[in-house]
Amino acid sequence: MSRLVTLFTGQWADLPLETLAAKASDWGFDGLELACWGDHFEVDKALEDDGYVTAKRDLLEAHGLACVAISTHLVGQCVCDPIDERHRAIVPDRVWGDGDPEGVRQRAAQEVIDTACAAERFGVEVVNGFTGSSVWSKLYFFPPTPQADIDAGYTDFADRWTPIMDAYARHGVRFGLEVHPTEIAYDIHTARRALDAIGNHPSFGFNFDPSHLIPQFVDPVAFINEFSDRIFHVHIKDARLQLDGRSSILSSHLDFGDPRRGWDFVSPGRGDVKWDPIIRALNRIGYQGPLSIEWEDSGMDREWGAHEALEMVRGQDFAPNEVAFDAAFGDGHE
Amino acid sequence: MSRLVTLFTGQWADLPLETLAAKASDWGFDGLELACWGDHFEVDKALEDDGYVTAKRDLLEAHGLACVAISTHLVGQCVCDPIDERHRAIVPDRVWGDGDPEGVRQRAAQEVIDTACAAERFGVEVVNGFTGSSVWSKLYFFPPTPQADIDAGYTDFADRWTPIMDAYARHGVRFGLEVHPTEIAYDIHTARRALDAIGNHPSFGFNFDPSHLIPQFVDPVAFINEFSDRIFHVHIKDARLQLDGRSSILSSHLDFGDPRRGWDFVSPGRGDVKWDPIIRALNRIGYQGPLSIEWEDSGMDREWGAHEALEMVRGQDFAPNEVAFDAAFGDGHE
Amino acid sequence: MSRLVTLFTGQWADLPLETLAAKASDWGFDGLELACWGDHFEVDKALEDDGYVTAKRDLLEAHGLACVAISTHLVGQCVCDPIDERHRAIVPDRVWGDGDPEGVRQRAAQEVIDTACAAERFGVEVVNGFTGSSVWSKLYFFPPTPQADIDAGYTDFADRWTPIMDAYARHGVRFGLEVHPTEIAYDIHTARRALDAIGNHPSFGFNFDPSHLIPQFVDPVAFINEFSDRIFHVHIKDARLQLDGRSSILSSHLDFGDPRRGWDFVSPGRGDVKWDPIIRALNRIGYQGPLSIEWEDSGMDREWGAHEALEMVRGQDFAPNEVAFDAAFGDGHE
Amino acid sequence: MSRLVTLFTGQWADLPLETLAAKASDWGFDGLELACWGDHFEVDKALEDDGYVTAKRDLLEAHGLACVAISTHLVGQCVCDPIDERHRAIVPDRVWGDGDPEGVRQRAAQEVIDTACAAERFGVEVVNGFTGSSVWSKLYFFPPTPQADIDAGYTDFADRWTPIMDAYARHGVRFGLEVHPTEIAYDIHTARRALDAIGNHPSFGFNFDPSHLIPQFVDPVAFINEFSDRIFHVHIKDARLQLDGRSSILSSHLDFGDPRRGWDFVSPGRGDVKWDPIIRALNRIGYQGPLSIEWEDSGMDREWGAHEALEMVRGQDFAPNEVAFDAAFGDGHE
Amino acid sequence: MSRLVTLFTGQWADLPLETLAAKASDWGFDGLELACWGDHFEVDKALEDDGYVTAKRDLLEAHGLACVAISTHLVGQCVCDPIDERHRAIVPDRVWGDGDPEGVRQRAAQEVIDTACAAERFGVEVVNGFTGSSVWSKLYFFPPTPQADIDAGYTDFADRWTPIMDAYARHGVRFGLEVHPTEIAYDIHTARRALDAIGNHPSFGFNFDPSHLIPQFVDPVAFINEFSDRIFHVHIKDARLQLDGRSSILSSHLDFGDPRRGWDFVSPGRGDVKWDPIIRALNRIGYQGPLSIEWEDSGMDREWGAHEALEMVRGQDFAPNEVAFDAAFGDGHE
Amino acid sequence: MSRLVTLFTGQWADLPLETLAAKASDWGFDGLELACWGDHFEVDKALEDDGYVTAKRDLLEAHGLACVAISTHLVGQCVCDPIDERHRAIVPDRVWGDGDPEGVRQRAAQEVIDTACAAERFGVEVVNGFTGSSVWSKLYFFPPTPQADIDAGYTDFADRWTPIMDAYARHGVRFGLEVHPTEIAYDIHTARRALDAIGNHPSFGFNFDPSHLIPQFVDPVAFINEFSDRIFHVHIKDARLQLDGRSSILSSHLDFGDPRRGWDFVSPGRGDVKWDPIIRALNRIGYQGPLSIEWEDSGMDREWGAHEALEMVRGQDFAPNEVAFDAAFGDGHE
Repeated sequence: MSRLVTLFTGQWADLPLETLAAKASDWGFDGLELACWGDHFEVDKALEDDGYVTAKRDLLEAHGLACVAISTHLVGQCVCDPIDERHRAIVPDRVWGDGDPEGVRQRAAQEVIDTACAAERFGVEVVNGFTGSSVWSKLYFFPPTPQADIDAGYTDFADRWTPIMDAYARHGVRFGLEVHPTEIAYDIHTARRALDAIGNHPSFGFNFDPSHLIPQFVDPVAFINEFSDRIFHVHIKDARLQLDGRSSILSSHLDFGDPRRGWDFVSPGRGDVKWDPIIRALNRIGYQGPLSIEWEDSGMDREWGAHEALEMVRGQDFAPNEVAFDAAFGDGHE
Repeated sequence: MSRLVTLFTGQWADLPLETLAAKASDWGFDGLELACWGDHFEVDKALEDDGYVTAKRDLLEAHGLACVAISTHLVGQCVCDPIDERHRAIVPDRVWGDGDPEGVRQRAAQEVIDTACAAERFGVEVVNGFTGSSVWSKLYFFPPTPQADIDAGYTDFADRWTPIMDAYARHGVRFGLEVHPTEIAYDIHTARRALDAIGNHPSFGFNFDPSHLIPQFVDPVAFINEFSDRIFHVHIKDARLQLDGRSSILSSHLDFGDPRRGWDFVSPGRGDVKWDPIIRALNRIGYQGPLSIEWEDSGMDREWGAHEALEMVRGQDFAPNEVAFDAAFGDGHE
Repeated sequence: MSRLVTLFTGQWADLPLETLAAKASDWGFDGLELACWGDHFEVDKALEDDGYVTAKRDLLEAHGLACVAISTHLVGQCVCDPIDERHRAIVPDRVWGDGDPEGVRQRAAQEVIDTACAAERFGVEVVNGFTGSSVWSKLYFFPPTPQADIDAGYTDFADRWTPIMDAYARHGVRFGLEVHPTEIAYDIHTARRALDAIGNHPSFGFNFDPSHLIPQFVDPVAFINEFSDRIFHVHIKDARLQLDGRSSILSSHLDFGDPRRGWDFVSPGRGDVKWDPIIRALNRIGYQGPLSIEWEDSGMDREWGAHEALEMVRGQDFAPNEVAFDAAFGDGHE
Repeated sequence: MSRLVTLFTGQWADLPLETLAAKASDWGFDGLELACWGDHFEVDKALEDDGYVTAKRDLLEAHGLACVAISTHLVGQCVCDPIDERHRAIVPDRVWGDGDPEGVRQRAAQEVIDTACAAERFGVEVVNGFTGSSVWSKLYFFPPTPQADIDAGYTDFADRWTPIMDAYARHGVRFGLEVHPTEIAYDIHTARRALDAIGNHPSFGFNFDPSHLIPQFVDPVAFINEFSDRIFHVHIKDARLQLDGRSSILSSHLDFGDPRRGWDFVSPGRGDVKWDPIIRALNRIGYQGPLSIEWEDSGMDREWGAHEALEMVRGQDFAPNEVAFDAAFGDGHE
Repeated sequence: MSRLVTLFTGQWADLPLETLAAKASDWGFDGLELACWGDHFEVDKALEDDGYVTAKRDLLEAHGLACVAISTHLVGQCVCDPIDERHRAIVPDRVWGDGDPEGVRQRAAQEVIDTACAAERFGVEVVNGFTGSSVWSKLYFFPPTPQADIDAGYTDFADRWTPIMDAYARHGVRFGLEVHPTEIAYDIHTARRALDAIGNHPSFGFNFDPSHLIPQFVDPVAFINEFSDRIFHVHIKDARLQLDGRSSILSSHLDFGDPRRGWDFVSPGRGDVKWDPIIRALNRIGYQGPLSIEWEDSGMDREWGAHEALEMVRGQDFAPNEVAFDAAFGDGHE
Repeated sequence: MSRLVTLFTGQWADLPLETLAAKASDWGFDGLELACWGDHFEVDKALEDDGYVTAKRDLLEAHGLACVAISTHLVGQCVCDPIDERHRAIVPDRVWGDGDPEGVRQRAAQEVIDTACAAERFGVEVVNGFTGSSVWSKLYFFPPTPQADIDAGYTDFADRWTPIMDAYARHGVRFGLEVHPTEIAYDIHTARRALDAIGNHPSFGFNFDPSHLIPQFVDPVAFINEFSDRIFHVHIKDARLQLDGRSSILSSHLDFGDPRRGWDFVSPGRGDVKWDPIIRALNRIGYQGPLSIEWEDSGMDREWGAHEALEMVRGQDFAPNEVAFDAAFGDGHE
């Protein structure tokens, strides 16, 4: 379908955008999905300085790169989460402030709204990100966990995100939650519950990323079919099961990259994601946004990987059929 | 083995042959397997006008394309079938006539004979096609269906096709039935029964096409091994199961391309056919005919698909080994 | 749940009911699902003679057997089917008449209505059966088959069965279509299409029989979940795949019992049906009707089989849980 | 091997022990594994009143029941856990106190020590239970979670449990952690890490329960082989995957018993646990303790289930072979 | 089919026959398949003393036990094998003699003939056993092994066994080779090669034992279908794969019973043999001989095992169907 | 990781090295692993003529080819094997001599030592090869085979190879046994046993070749993990299972290339070896030696195959990751 193939910059934030843009351009990418961290896309600067977004656009254009979505995973995570020290490492000081959990959550919510404003200025209509969740930590229902506890988590999500989504609507920007463990939605059933909780707010949809569904044994195509009008953005990321009777699907508190884990992220095309049926499903629902490679593989050189992932996507992004075969065969009739 | 890789033109009959030949040549095909519909290969014209076949050859040669087989699937289907309105759409008016079923069947039989005659003039030794079947519609044995009913179907097939095959023998042409649901032979056991019925007529063999075996769970290599001297032609076509607990292998009266079906045709290389063992089997039996891509995929742009299918076949069509490894190792002895 | 375990008498119609009732009672069955053929339940006699149904009840009660459903598969098949010689063998002469297809279909429709009337007299609220289908024979879409052809088949079904269902409603009887190849509904998608066609008529539902779903790779539990308010009756029947690379799932025009088929019916408990999840699903939807063993296995002595099937069902028909485990654990709190 | 088959009373704590003992005895159990909640085994009473344990023994003996292990899952859970409202429901008021988390943890630790004391008085050498975990909630490593965080959790475990285990050693009692999500050890790698953390304390081992390994895809036999000298007790409990492409192995915040979950507990023998290899492994390591049925199945009547589970275990608890087959064959030599 | 269920005594030769007969009778066996070692059936005594076979029969009859086959596996093994010290342990001194390999082979051949003579006297028509093989040790073709070497092995087999089989024919006894690794035939292709080598001698057939096919991944039913007229006897023995990524299907020179092996024998019903299709296949070919349990499981008490194996066989040995279901359904026609 | 990709010359020994070197260079190989047979690397000449190794190096360098390992599989095989005629074909006359088995074994041992000496002169630090085994032929434990017999085989191995390994140590050369059926080590457990037997001699390790593990169902990655410090060299060779219910994993005494075998070698990338996890494992253990393609496929033209295998390896030999993703994400913190 010749969709844009972009590179999500989140895993490259150690590189200045200028460096990364040059590389991505060389590798053949059509564009970048800028992370709102590192110097890639700084929301505060975008809002305070009119020249900031222009300069970013100029930089990208100088390398022939488009940008149609930006991403606020790290700050978004803090909106609903119980806050601990780990969050400090992922947000700007202005969001962390004194670290009081409720304060962090509220400042994070405001930052997510600001991000929509900055996106609008930058000419981008999709912001991807995480939501966090106040109930993720109660994942396994022991001690016995009443549904009322879980309901409270979804209410908390709706309370915090409805005003954010209202702001997004005003800015003409849509928010794509990356469905992912630790978020309010991590599979089909919780995505439905989240949509129900937020009243199917038109600004709220999903950044489809199959890599998070694979280790849950959820069929990515079933997700697309279920939420066909809510696929706002697509990540190309892959994961692989490595179950051998000793490893656990819960991965044993082991780091990504540890071979004793029950699953891991791998370079797109090397995992258990079947891309062909996903492309067909995206074609069916008429998705025309970018295919954005979120490259993460703890066992492979990332430059090698970005290159082969791009090649993989180019080989998969075919257009749907425009010819009915019956018609062709029917030409037997003169 | 550097077999010819040809494109079966049946799914491209909406294009004039001239247009298609130019495209196929550009894509790198070695030749075409012309369908006897559209303007690709018109039997009546080939018989009435001596210049017709010469002109076709000239056209093909102008594009550097060979043609070693033609195909009469649509008319062939009418020879044994109970005839209904659907058949009207697939045959020329001269075969349909007044639409009286027995009349259609007899005219179709004559057309299939004429096709051999035209093939001979055109310098082609293989005609592929369908046979139809008077008993396919009794596939599931309810109401209880005695074997006598089925035997009658095979007798009907033999009665109608033996004279056709005799004519083929006279023309030095062989007929390759594409083993396929709706035909007198659709798997290994029915192919054997058909051969038995027709007395293993030397003109009657098969156009091997693994895509029709996949949704029946028949191993394509087992078919080749079983009928190693009857593989007259090979179609490269692929199919994929898409069983998810809700879809049926019988496909629910749903159109090809509907994702709720239990299986579908897909571009060669993207389905469940394992091509490597098929190439090995073809090498073992000494098959030297073309590998003819019958491209059909309701979910992919056909030009993209034809190109990638050709590339796939080129990567698979290896020659057999000429060296015995024991011999090599044995050189240890001086 | 201590549901009634009954024996469907269709496969035992060579035995007089008196003989069969004695056997079934000895084996430990709770009741019989009488077939409307043989001398088991004769609709014409039930309607013309008031004493007929009383005598049947007396006979059953003498053996301690209940009857809560009767079955009209054979006549029902003729309502929508294209009629051929095979149908003659499965209907009474009064339905066959002169064998003119439309006449047979109309007389069969009336007989199905009469069956409801007889059921009412007999004190039975469920009649199971087949519907036939005018489009089953177009199962595989070659020659190319437009959806309009299929739609016409569902319209034909609705036209013929709506008045029948209206009559059923008047008699306070429900009709359970056994979802089955050759019928208007044979899987989830066609069952939905049939319900849509007939306007979700409240008298029309299903006789759930998992054995017909297994060789289609349809999950029986998915069927129950999808049509949870339409499960009017349940057949306990089993099937087994016997795919070995040479056999076809379409079964090669071979008789049941032939080991070269790709699947076959087997005694309940010996096939691929997983009964435990089915019992759980039936418990969830609150199904309280009988579990009726339709015993068919071409490779096993039927008396041995009926006995072991009954034992299998007794070992599976457990009641749902009434205790919440959280509550129990919660008693830790004093 | 004719091991004792006992019933763990945790899921039956709504019944007075007297009632349950009568039932278990009727069903044929050899003994009970008493839960330290409900009135089954009350640690405080056992310590304050010398007659308490005698009366319990008398009650059990009156029903011919042994007791060789007691269980303190609920209180044990509070030793390392972050405490929330859910914990209030699972501990006695004297442990909950004012609910201050650290206070709850310390009182829980003391109660676990007291349980060993009570066990000694009661003549029981194994106490099973949970440990809780301060790091379980960081299961998925986002926000990025350094190993230092996890290490701290294991240190916390060691700090809290080493003195408890020292006390156990003094009382001649061993503690069997039920390896389970939400605990410091939930699979093979975390069990090893826990053992390392606690210096392989001789009082610390495992209550082997395969049902918690199944939904993690960990082979129960691998666990036994790995920790062959640390299997202090065995639970017979079963679980079943119900992955269908839409359900998640993380179970979507859905209650046990909800069919949309990716897995669930089921009555022993009905799940994915393969019991035969487990019995062989237990025979190899010389395990001579009880096989204690922890019955939990949200979809089955528990009395039906306890009965069938007992029958299942009786059919599996075979003794190892004492004869070498070579020797027997060797008798060919006279 | 109510076939005799017998116990093969080979694994019980440490027990005097009198002891074993009493046990087997108590367990419910119908008969014994006597091993020609231990005191179970001594060929030399049977030939030298007319009273020997009568006394054996009396002993068996006193326990209500039949005997329709005897077995000479140990001596048979020596007929073709390269002889080493291991063979000394499995044959009588009179066969071993001075241990010169060719002498042992020839004496073993004579003993196998004598066994037929003894069988005839004893009234038994089937002798089961092994053949040995001069080429088994060349199993893996390195150093490179020409087919001429293998052919020589089959010629050696034919040379040694044709005279033996001629003798069997004279005695009216048939020989059932237990197809098994280390024998001249160990799978379908080698069984065919052995039959070809020995000219399809009518006295030479097979003692079908599925346990030896399972670890080779050969379908036991395919074996029965292939050699339907050569199934002279049936062993009920089971095996189970225990492949875990570390174990090898070649079993690493580890003893039976070692859990690190890639497969092992287990009590019938506990392994990977599917008995139902085997019974159906035996019914189809009309096999009416005994089902003889060869019980071998290094991890289970053999008395427990013999009992449960017998129960398993009784639950499987069903008769074929005598009723055509179409006929039953066809009674719809009055 | 940009390891050297070399071609093992063993299967090309029918070609003079000069011819092969030219081809390999053209195809793009980085080097050759020279076989010590044919004219590729002649140990006797290397020892007697100082110019020999220089000339070889010159030849290789002229084609831009490295050589970092040589291989002595054929002679090595004779060190422990029982010797038969097949060995004559694989060793030089000077090793075979009069063919007396013990003499052959001792001369072979000396030749293996000489090979280390020649390797040292040639500037190569790794010699790959086979060991043979005196117990391989006792693979299947019938007649009953005591562990003492197997132990004797490992002792024999240690006795013969310890002095060889001592010599290797002196020459600064390491020996990589290709773990393979017919060798003293053919899987994980026997490799451990061999290492134990030889006292973990530092000169003794493995030439890792996954193709020999695949038909044993051993996970190649498990092998690498188990022997991470003993992987001295790596062969890229592939194998494929072709089990169809009739073929045996033991391969029925059939030649490589026969489609009735249960498995066969195939061109790397076309078999069941999963290369990606192997590359990751090699990266983890820090293996920096060559990836040496041992090309063997009885069904494919070897020149086609060598080319595609090289391309496959180039596409897999990626470097490990140098960036921690947490760090990148952590840049959210300014």
